[in-house]
Amino acid sequence: MSDKFISERNLKFLLFDVFDAASLTQYPYYEEHNREIFDMVLETAMKIGKDLLRPNLEEMDKNPPEFVDGEVRVHPSMKAFLKECGEGGWIDSNAPMEAGGQQLPLTIAFACRFIFSAANYSAMVYPLLTDGAAHLIEALGTEDLKETYLPKMYSAEWQGTMALTEAQAGSSIGDVTTVAAPMEEGYYKIRGQKIFISASDHDAVENVVHLMLGRIEGAPPGVKGISLFVVPKKRYNDNGELVPNDVHIAGLYHKLGYRGSPITQMSMGENDDCRGWLVGGPNKGLAGMFQMMNEQRIDVGLGASGIASAAYYEALEYSKERPQGRPLSSKDPSKPQVPIIEHPDVKRMLLFQRAIVEGSLSLLFQCAKFADLEIVTTGEEKEKNSLLLDLLTPIAKSYPAEMGILSVSQGLQCLGGYGYCDEFPLEQHYRDVRIHPIHEGTTGIQGQDLLGRKVRIKEGKAFKLYLEEVRKTIGAANDFPELLPFASALENSLEKLEKVTKYLLDLGENESAEVFLADATLYLELFGIISVAWQWLVQGLFIQKGLNDNPSGSEEGFLHGKFMTLRFFFAYELPKIEGLVQRLINSDGLTVEMKMEYFSD
Amino acid sequence: MSDKFISERNLKFLLFDVFDAASLTQYPYYEEHNREIFDMVLETAMKIGKDLLRPNLEEMDKNPPEFVDGEVRVHPSMKAFLKECGEGGWIDSNAPMEAGGQQLPLTIAFACRFIFSAANYSAMVYPLLTDGAAHLIEALGTEDLKETYLPKMYSAEWQGTMALTEAQAGSSIGDVTTVAAPMEEGYYKIRGQKIFISASDHDAVENVVHLMLGRIEGAPPGVKGISLFVVPKKRYNDNGELVPNDVHIAGLYHKLGYRGSPITQMSMGENDDCRGWLVGGPNKGLAGMFQMMNEQRIDVGLGASGIASAAYYEALEYSKERPQGRPLSSKDPSKPQVPIIEHPDVKRMLLFQRAIVEGSLSLLFQCAKFADLEIVTTGEEKEKNSLLLDLLTPIAKSYPAEMGILSVSQGLQCLGGYGYCDEFPLEQHYRDVRIHPIHEGTTGIQGQDLLGRKVRIKEGKAFKLYLEEVRKTIGAANDFPELLPFASALENSLEKLEKVTKYLLDLGENESAEVFLADATLYLELFGIISVAWQWLVQGLFIQKGLNDNPSGSEEGFLHGKFMTLRFFFAYELPKIEGLVQRLINSDGLTVEMKMEYFSD
Repeated sequence: MSDKFISERNLKFLLFDVFDAASLTQYPYYEEHNREIFDMVLETAMKIGKDLLRPNLEEMDKNPPEFVDGEVRVHPSMKAFLKECGEGGWIDSNAPMEAGGQQLPLTIAFACRFIFSAANYSAMVYPLLTDGAAHLIEALGTEDLKETYLPKMYSAEWQGTMALTEAQAGSSIGDVTTVAAPMEEGYYKIRGQKIFISASDHDAVENVVHLMLGRIEGAPPGVKGISLFVVPKKRYNDNGELVPNDVHIAGLYHKLGYRGSPITQMSMGENDDCRGWLVGGPNKGLAGMFQMMNEQRIDVGLGASGIASAAYYEALEYSKERPQGRPLSSKDPSKPQVPIIEHPDVKRMLLFQRAIVEGSLSLLFQCAKFADLEIVTTGEEKEKNSLLLDLLTPIAKSYPAEMGILSVSQGLQCLGGYGYCDEFPLEQHYRDVRIHPIHEGTTGIQGQDLLGRKVRIKEGKAFKLYLEEVRKTIGAANDFPELLPFASALENSLEKLEKVTKYLLDLGENESAEVFLADATLYLELFGIISVAWQWLVQGLFIQKGLNDNPSGSEEGFLHGKFMTLRFFFAYELPKIEGLVQRLINSDGLTVEMKMEYFSD
Repeated sequence: MSDKFISERNLKFLLFDVFDAASLTQYPYYEEHNREIFDMVLETAMKIGKDLLRPNLEEMDKNPPEFVDGEVRVHPSMKAFLKECGEGGWIDSNAPMEAGGQQLPLTIAFACRFIFSAANYSAMVYPLLTDGAAHLIEALGTEDLKETYLPKMYSAEWQGTMALTEAQAGSSIGDVTTVAAPMEEGYYKIRGQKIFISASDHDAVENVVHLMLGRIEGAPPGVKGISLFVVPKKRYNDNGELVPNDVHIAGLYHKLGYRGSPITQMSMGENDDCRGWLVGGPNKGLAGMFQMMNEQRIDVGLGASGIASAAYYEALEYSKERPQGRPLSSKDPSKPQVPIIEHPDVKRMLLFQRAIVEGSLSLLFQCAKFADLEIVTTGEEKEKNSLLLDLLTPIAKSYPAEMGILSVSQGLQCLGGYGYCDEFPLEQHYRDVRIHPIHEGTTGIQGQDLLGRKVRIKEGKAFKLYLEEVRKTIGAANDFPELLPFASALENSLEKLEKVTKYLLDLGENESAEVFLADATLYLELFGIISVAWQWLVQGLFIQKGLNDNPSGSEEGFLHGKFMTLRFFFAYELPKIEGLVQRLINSDGLTVEMKMEYFSD
């Protein structure tokens, strides 16, 4: 296994050059922090990644969680890792200080999550879910709930989960049927079943706290009748002792990858003694869920980029070390073979991976920056940051997820037959990364969110702001002669995006919702490619600034390598929009027209 | 698991309408056959697929081969299957009758291989390898070798293999170092190691016959010094008893998928007692290997399409049965949920799979038809069939392989979380199909074969013939008003292909081989998309003929479904050439320019 799983140099380039995380400390909210603290946080995260996470990557895959006597046993290393997460303050790192957090910018927290995901995605999911669930209690819970749950969750003694999915209600959240009967004591009696719940039971923690979607008896049908509850595995009795809360694990799923993390089916209230506590108002569950979900969606993007990063460095190391074949223009068999990295086709596969990993990561940091600025800005500026984050969320989830799969697959391909065998971790990365277009809302759902909702928010305000933001980058790039062709290609693409968007929105006015959204997944793909091209141009500004300073040694290599990767993205990836534009601008409802009986043979 | 894994209706449509396999029986070589025989063969193949192969699909994955006491144990069902292969004449089905075969057209043999691959790809590989090895002995071996090996191989009592790869020589075949020392007795003493050898040892057969690449002592370096040998696991001694031939299995690989088939490392001559017999002349091994390899390459395409077919029908069944969500234009939550197949985005995913599976299969049958015609034609016509088969081989290998992965991935996606779990076979199909861009020459190698060799054969004669062939289809399509837009789109694409090809060949004249071939993989992709668009138009001719006959019932549904899939391919897949053309026509040697040290961070 390669020692390297992320580029620290690139991470710092993005954090401190491109997105200038240190500048956030000028705002009172972040003034307790400074660059040195950020560096220390990153250094610690790297240490945890190297020492606690990466060494267990393969073992956790080969020894997945077991279901024994109604309880889930996970890899023993998770205890030490969660202890570290609690003691090191990793769960609440970006929560406000008044809530017991460290008020760390999300930009920095994201960098750490990226490191953890690259080191061992399955392990990363445990604290991440606790983090998301805790944030929701912190934002919407009563003081009582906060007191009871947050300290235990922030210390990682208790696991948090997001318990949404039910067998009959996967992507159709409004069809949740878990029932909550209000009791005089103030709690609800919960009855129902959930499926596909990550980290929903395991022996590395004392208790599990489910943030659960349910329906108060008599609530209206659909999403308007959904409420959110805290449903712990164990609750306190009157003596302050933890007792079972009638939550039962029915079984574990056996998965293609992402095996270190247990995913279960669970049932609540088999003995009519499962208690839940309302979070947010009755029938207001959807909004709360989306707060948690939106965070998790971007985390999915981080997870996918992390895995793709690890796969890339694995493929890179192999390609540098593996001799095979000779240069195409001098095939003399009596000469020694060359490392495969010297073959242009292998360099193409490596550049592809790097372009995806570093481009995705840039987009994710862009989102984090908007989120951080949303907290510290006001008025128009705050709205702008909020709208841009909203708009980019489905893209920041899906682009890294979908392209991450292709990226890891190219990594595997670099190793040939060895990539297909378990002597190298590529085949595991390939299995692990496949989860990302599925969980926290499939790619199809993200496409509908983007086209059906996000580009139409406030009469297209988010979309307009996006165009402005990208054009700001194009404007800045025009100051660098080396960037002119890329600035011009991006402007050209942006005009196509505007044209397609207008065409589709018009279609939405004149045709059924089915026809309007039939190709929303392709629109998402188009938007994703252009957004990552934008991010490469954003990086280009700082690459060129760096190169203008006449760097030497490894710094020169790094910046030239980045610039070649930028060129690669514009040469090989951006042109993919042409086919998408051609299809989208000719949307004819073909798939709507297709009848079910035509599939009969 | 879905009952259906292939469409028999579509198979017959391709075989008997589109490619008119029955017309082959007009040639003396095939005159012993007729449509009834073909139908019977197909029916038997379906029965074997259903009864002997498919029931063991998951079990063979969960219980992969084991290495016990130096020997490989495979799933017990392989014995019964290989017995059936021998008794039913499946190994030698398309071999000439004088060689003990049935002289079945390859078109029909391919259909059977497709059925077997779809039912259980790992199992299919056993007879397929024997078939390839036997054909080679039959074509190039001495009478002695034929007598010794062919009956046992055709009866499937002995396994055949293709033993090429060595640790230091994967894609670089010329670096094979297995040594063959000529002995006075007429055999060679073999010494060396091989890796990644499929079906190279197992307990379902009595003996294994390796077709092995090696190097006669003193042979020139590189591919010019490579010879081909028959190296059995056991050889006959003077008493006609089978005795060990000093071939040892060093271990098994643990693979991502394709687990039912054992892949081993082996060593020959540890005790200086491994004998091999030359096949073809000394140092003439490459030509023989390519005969075997070219057959296997097309079989890889069949294997990938087979797996993609099984995955498609799995996804289709699930999509028809799984209720989830409501129509986008009437989301009333009090109404029942609809099967997900009613969502346009799910239909898009299903149409994509169908377009890939049926388009690939058509291309594979097109190749089979050229191969069958090559046998029975003479002069110019024979050369034409031969050149077109050569040209299309890398495409028929790679398009189904690469697109098969995406197709299965979309099948998995249709099932959401369930697709990621082993309750359904999608996750296995996803693992299984990933082998295909790797074995029998990676996609990168196929690209170089296509652009570096095939389009240049005989001053571009194969390429010219290809253009003529496609334009013949375009001409015929112009007789059907419904096909006009597709005929015109294909003509347009063909002109782009010509332009790109000319551009690249010019580049080849003026630049280094590295620059010329740097984007050969993209060229292969471009050529593949256009070739499958061609095949959809070929099918379109017969779809329209069928529709003009006013069909009813399921036949009408089948033909309309096919036509919608044709439309889908032209609307969603063919436009993907735009981005590829844009890149290829701007080939600038970017990946050649990229330096190794730029990858250092």
